[in-house]
Amino acid sequence: MASRGSYRGTPETRARIVEAALAEFSAGGYEASSVRTIAATAGLSHPGLLHHFPTKQALLEAVLTAQEDADQEAFADHPAPTTAAELADVVSAAVALDRRATALVQLRARLAVAGGERDHPAHDFAVRRYQRLAGQLAGQIAALPEGEIGAGVRPQEAADILLAAIEGLLVRGLAEPDLDVPGLVRMAVLRVVRG
Amino acid sequence: MASRGSYRGTPETRARIVEAALAEFSAGGYEASSVRTIAATAGLSHPGLLHHFPTKQALLEAVLTAQEDADQEAFADHPAPTTAAELADVVSAAVALDRRATALVQLRARLAVAGGERDHPAHDFAVRRYQRLAGQLAGQIAALPEGEIGAGVRPQEAADILLAAIEGLLVRGLAEPDLDVPGLVRMAVLRVVRG
Repeated sequence: MASRGSYRGTPETRARIVEAALAEFSAGGYEASSVRTIAATAGLSHPGLLHHFPTKQALLEAVLTAQEDADQEAFADHPAPTTAAELADVVSAAVALDRRATALVQLRARLAVAGGERDHPAHDFAVRRYQRLAGQLAGQIAALPEGEIGAGVRPQEAADILLAAIEGLLVRGLAEPDLDVPGLVRMAVLRVVRG
Repeated sequence: MASRGSYRGTPETRARIVEAALAEFSAGGYEASSVRTIAATAGLSHPGLLHHFPTKQALLEAVLTAQEDADQEAFADHPAPTTAAELADVVSAAVALDRRATALVQLRARLAVAGGERDHPAHDFAVRRYQRLAGQLAGQIAALPEGEIGAGVRPQEAADILLAAIEGLLVRGLAEPDLDVPGLVRMAVLRVVRG
């Protein structure tokens, strides 16, 4: 805690910049975003920001990495579920947190679409993110005891379907605030896993 | 066919403009799109385009309406499915068509995210589209004979989950060309409907 010496304050500054970048990217998308605006929002000069993040893509990567870490925590905090109902509760709780983080849902959805283009900076991130999240969920499904998984249910297939349903429901939820996204996700997990 | 008189040619011109607008909106999103570029792509002057579509929002509405009509056709062409497997086949076939229409998937996904903001021109469209598609799917599920629907499956809930899974898989498919989107959709329908 006390040994950071002359770097004291830097993590806080970086966190402030990443937060400002998340807000700016979420509002208008990556292409339309201005590094100068992000600097101003974070209370820095333009050169001051460039000292921490030399390019706009470095900023994007920092935002995405912060988001990946948050995703990881949402999954890692829980003990491995031992029933389909427990898994449904864990996933639904993570989605309920996302549901409130509207700016993050928007950014992620925009990047998912942009990442569909092979030459976009977010392409590799989008593919890695899908595969990591689906892989984690597949692992949790595969680890359930026998009676908890329906006959013929393949964990990877089930995870791919559920991840898509979660992302689709979160995006639809942006336009429909009354949609019970966590409840629908809970139901989706039960139906898809128990088959 | 022969009675259009002096309006002959107008539907073709409008169709060409709508096609150019779809391409432009899909490439860069609605906000960043240029009506002048759309006019040039359609082989018209800027005033020539404005004669048909006086505002950019009128263009967006025309693109979205053309897309709604195509969606309707994809559903309406088929006789009502009488088994969950038939329904899975019909939905999967419609998704297979969408899967190839990358520009449309991108535009729709971008508009779905943009439509999450209440003051965006696409907001009402996004909400109406979700509700119409989910409503149609719920109707098809509800019309299945008793043995084809799992105990406790609520058609509206199942439709909301499936529509989200379809949209999520189509977006993920943009970044992962090898993902078997129609196959996963088919499996999703079977699991969610049969419960």
